[in-house]
Amino acid sequence: MSLLDGTETQTYDPVRQDLDATSDVAASHWPMNAWYAAAYDVEVGRRLTPVRVAGVPIVLYRRVDGRAVALADACWHRLVPLALGSLEGDDVRCGYHGIRYSPEGRCTHMPAQQTINPSAAVRSYPVAERHRFVWVWPGDPALADPATIPDMHWNDDAAWVADGKVIEVRAGYQLVLDNLLDLTHEEFIHTSSIGNGALSESDFTTTHDSASGRVTVTRWMLGIEAPPLWKYLLSVKFPDYRGPVDRWQIIRFTAPATICIDVGVAKAGTGAPEGDRSQGVNGYVLNTMCPTGPKSCRYLWAIARDFATDSQRITTELREGVAGVFAEDEAMLNAQQAAIDATPGYDFYNLNIDAGGQWARRLITAMVERERM
Amino acid sequence: MSLLDGTETQTYDPVRQDLDATSDVAASHWPMNAWYAAAYDVEVGRRLTPVRVAGVPIVLYRRVDGRAVALADACWHRLVPLALGSLEGDDVRCGYHGIRYSPEGRCTHMPAQQTINPSAAVRSYPVAERHRFVWVWPGDPALADPATIPDMHWNDDAAWVADGKVIEVRAGYQLVLDNLLDLTHEEFIHTSSIGNGALSESDFTTTHDSASGRVTVTRWMLGIEAPPLWKYLLSVKFPDYRGPVDRWQIIRFTAPATICIDVGVAKAGTGAPEGDRSQGVNGYVLNTMCPTGPKSCRYLWAIARDFATDSQRITTELREGVAGVFAEDEAMLNAQQAAIDATPGYDFYNLNIDAGGQWARRLITAMVERERM
Amino acid sequence: MSLLDGTETQTYDPVRQDLDATSDVAASHWPMNAWYAAAYDVEVGRRLTPVRVAGVPIVLYRRVDGRAVALADACWHRLVPLALGSLEGDDVRCGYHGIRYSPEGRCTHMPAQQTINPSAAVRSYPVAERHRFVWVWPGDPALADPATIPDMHWNDDAAWVADGKVIEVRAGYQLVLDNLLDLTHEEFIHTSSIGNGALSESDFTTTHDSASGRVTVTRWMLGIEAPPLWKYLLSVKFPDYRGPVDRWQIIRFTAPATICIDVGVAKAGTGAPEGDRSQGVNGYVLNTMCPTGPKSCRYLWAIARDFATDSQRITTELREGVAGVFAEDEAMLNAQQAAIDATPGYDFYNLNIDAGGQWARRLITAMVERERM
Repeated sequence: MSLLDGTETQTYDPVRQDLDATSDVAASHWPMNAWYAAAYDVEVGRRLTPVRVAGVPIVLYRRVDGRAVALADACWHRLVPLALGSLEGDDVRCGYHGIRYSPEGRCTHMPAQQTINPSAAVRSYPVAERHRFVWVWPGDPALADPATIPDMHWNDDAAWVADGKVIEVRAGYQLVLDNLLDLTHEEFIHTSSIGNGALSESDFTTTHDSASGRVTVTRWMLGIEAPPLWKYLLSVKFPDYRGPVDRWQIIRFTAPATICIDVGVAKAGTGAPEGDRSQGVNGYVLNTMCPTGPKSCRYLWAIARDFATDSQRITTELREGVAGVFAEDEAMLNAQQAAIDATPGYDFYNLNIDAGGQWARRLITAMVERERM
Repeated sequence: MSLLDGTETQTYDPVRQDLDATSDVAASHWPMNAWYAAAYDVEVGRRLTPVRVAGVPIVLYRRVDGRAVALADACWHRLVPLALGSLEGDDVRCGYHGIRYSPEGRCTHMPAQQTINPSAAVRSYPVAERHRFVWVWPGDPALADPATIPDMHWNDDAAWVADGKVIEVRAGYQLVLDNLLDLTHEEFIHTSSIGNGALSESDFTTTHDSASGRVTVTRWMLGIEAPPLWKYLLSVKFPDYRGPVDRWQIIRFTAPATICIDVGVAKAGTGAPEGDRSQGVNGYVLNTMCPTGPKSCRYLWAIARDFATDSQRITTELREGVAGVFAEDEAMLNAQQAAIDATPGYDFYNLNIDAGGQWARRLITAMVERERM
Repeated sequence: MSLLDGTETQTYDPVRQDLDATSDVAASHWPMNAWYAAAYDVEVGRRLTPVRVAGVPIVLYRRVDGRAVALADACWHRLVPLALGSLEGDDVRCGYHGIRYSPEGRCTHMPAQQTINPSAAVRSYPVAERHRFVWVWPGDPALADPATIPDMHWNDDAAWVADGKVIEVRAGYQLVLDNLLDLTHEEFIHTSSIGNGALSESDFTTTHDSASGRVTVTRWMLGIEAPPLWKYLLSVKFPDYRGPVDRWQIIRFTAPATICIDVGVAKAGTGAPEGDRSQGVNGYVLNTMCPTGPKSCRYLWAIARDFATDSQRITTELREGVAGVFAEDEAMLNAQQAAIDATPGYDFYNLNIDAGGQWARRLITAMVERERM
């Protein structure tokens, strides 16, 4: 098995349980040649919205025809944020000296000058809107292919209903990846909603593929009692069922910053592991992070489902339930980042449960290193 | 034309429109051998008032006879700010261990000691009160000549009425100079009060004189409609006039940190450009900055006028009107400083309108370099 | 007299009055092989309490049987603060991934693993509870001998009544030592309670002993009028006495961070200086500092007395009176630390009154240097 390709099954293996201590604690790097979800679609409109994408100050807005625009949020002339200016048709005008730029970043007006210096411009970034997110490509525009935007179609697929929120996390995006690629923490943080003891006791499988930049962590918990949230959701579809369930969590990471988690429970022994989910309920937890700085990120998420799709009540309950769970994670992530900052030189130690997160970091590091060549 | 002397007229010149990008973005330097207006006269009294002048912590107070004193705001003994102590006659006593200093900074009492170490002293700075400001000279006292204090006499001249305020700006003082030496930004920031389209469309002349450390930017706008504030002021003197005006802005910079702007409007075609201002109204916007740190300054200003001098109502209207305009500038300056801090290595690009600010920076740099020789 | 041993009497000596300017201004060092009072006994219970001891993040709690525990406040696995976790019997469980540690810091449970890596551990620190404080030894555990905890027995001695508080000071602990080793500042800061003019006018004696790490500053003020607080306290025991008093302050420093001050007044001329305190009232001001960082410390104090020991009213009056006095010191110390930070390169100058503080710093420096050998 090569280092960057292969499949491994992680079980109770006393020999492998300790990967080497990594020196990735402070890892805050990210590739520039990547699509990052800078904002939810509803956050961008006919106004100037400042964000940071891969650490870069960017201003977002929509043209008159609705297409999103991403410009460097710093006037060429004196560095003032364009977000303090105003929209004029499809152009943005700096609020200080009135220099105006087109959506392509070209200067279209200079005060007190008849001619415009052709070098006067701000950088324009490739933008694509997909799956309800506004994706920005901070790297080489020639490489920006919207076909490589991670698949998060559950967020706007007619067969699914989805809703979500944005969290401004005061922790580096890789710490959020670690969090999502090992869900055993649900047992300890989220005890009242989705945690159950089976999580940390059950086997899981980790696969990775360096060519596509993907890692998958699969965990099945068979014949268990459903935790509170899942018990309620299963009862929506099967009001009379009281028995045990087969529960699944299939975590799919796409480098550098997207994780879609296929989750659900079905009546125990009805064939869910083999592919028949008709006797269960299925959801997708959609997560994608935009690194805003070495120690902060925008965390955009949604929860999608394929049952009771006409119930706004369940949409609201699920969105607010997940928001409560993620607020518990957010507090822990912020504390973890603060502890890392206060402890320079410390290395993380790894357990079996960290296999997914370790592979994700390796794939990200490989992307960053390729850019440096 | 030499680099540091000469006169140039700045018009729509496509060739000259781009001075080289400067590397002065982060320029926070200032000469030490200069008078800085540390405070308005009313800010200094029989109490201890801490300020920073050219980055130096200084405590201001008045002697019993009213003369202002400026001492280093750090006790010789243990560095505690003297501003936390108390006045005893003309002396100041440290609030921690009771060490007392004269207005000249000599120690006049030490607790638990019969004799006083002659070296025990805090630095005393030359002070002069002029034009309603308390000026402090942070550099070599031997060079401190009050005759070199910039002329701001409109602030206490019997023929003029003036009033003003202090702004604590979170931006370096050179960014405020840039702001005041190019008033085309009025068109974009101050659209509802003093801005008009003619500002960025009209020619202007920039002159400079390195021997006296002066830069002058002159702009005349002939036969225009007066912007709202000027329309009102002209109507105070000429209630029946409804016609066009000739408007002037003559910006006079004195290095390192003072700008007096001769502003006004007169009935169009009545000879104001040639020197007859009898058919107009005239004001002076007086501005002087005290650098408190590399990214902050005290900005002391006043607005003076020579018409309706007995109307307190107009004094208040003008002071509050200008305060509102300057609050718009302050927000932009704070955002600009924050953007500069977040973008290390960025250079400013210059337009025609930046000629005055560029010359001011050169004169300041020359002063600083002379001090280093 | 050697530099580190001996006795000297400090009087009005114009020759000695100026020790050399020290370069100890920024001194924030502390020995690691020392007991520090991390918390009051009541601050530690069956919950997780984060503190910093000698700059190290530590979590305190009590076992089921009440014994205090001090563990490094950072999970071995991912650095999350253990204080965010929960107690399980005598163990602490990390709130993120559920890793559990014994009071000795050994890992007792790992999620999703059958065996535990024997290297999985957090550091456990020696703890001892004495004189109502929970003392922690951040250095080499082999050297931690509870017999070397400074004597502060007045805080829980049957013959005395004591009560106190904790101040989180935003200044290095050595600045607090300076404050307590020279009480002449009472005359200037604490004029309304315990200050009187005699303080800075009276002789004092400074002795030190490097073997035991002790400094003593003794000051007697004979036949003076008692300051307000002492006048009141003496009247509690001798309601009818209105005459002058002999007042004493015997400041005893034990390196690195403890100062016990024997204070009191007796009817003048009744033999207090010679040892008969029967005609007076006696208190002990107990102070011990825990350095939490280079510019901050926990300051734990108590005020003890041997008179009117059954009056809770006087206990409260004394505790709140001292708290008011120390709040005045706290404001000055915070301002002093801020001034030091703003004035890099500045050296303190020393007066006669600083002899005690200077010797304390020398003893601390010697401890730190011995650790480095």
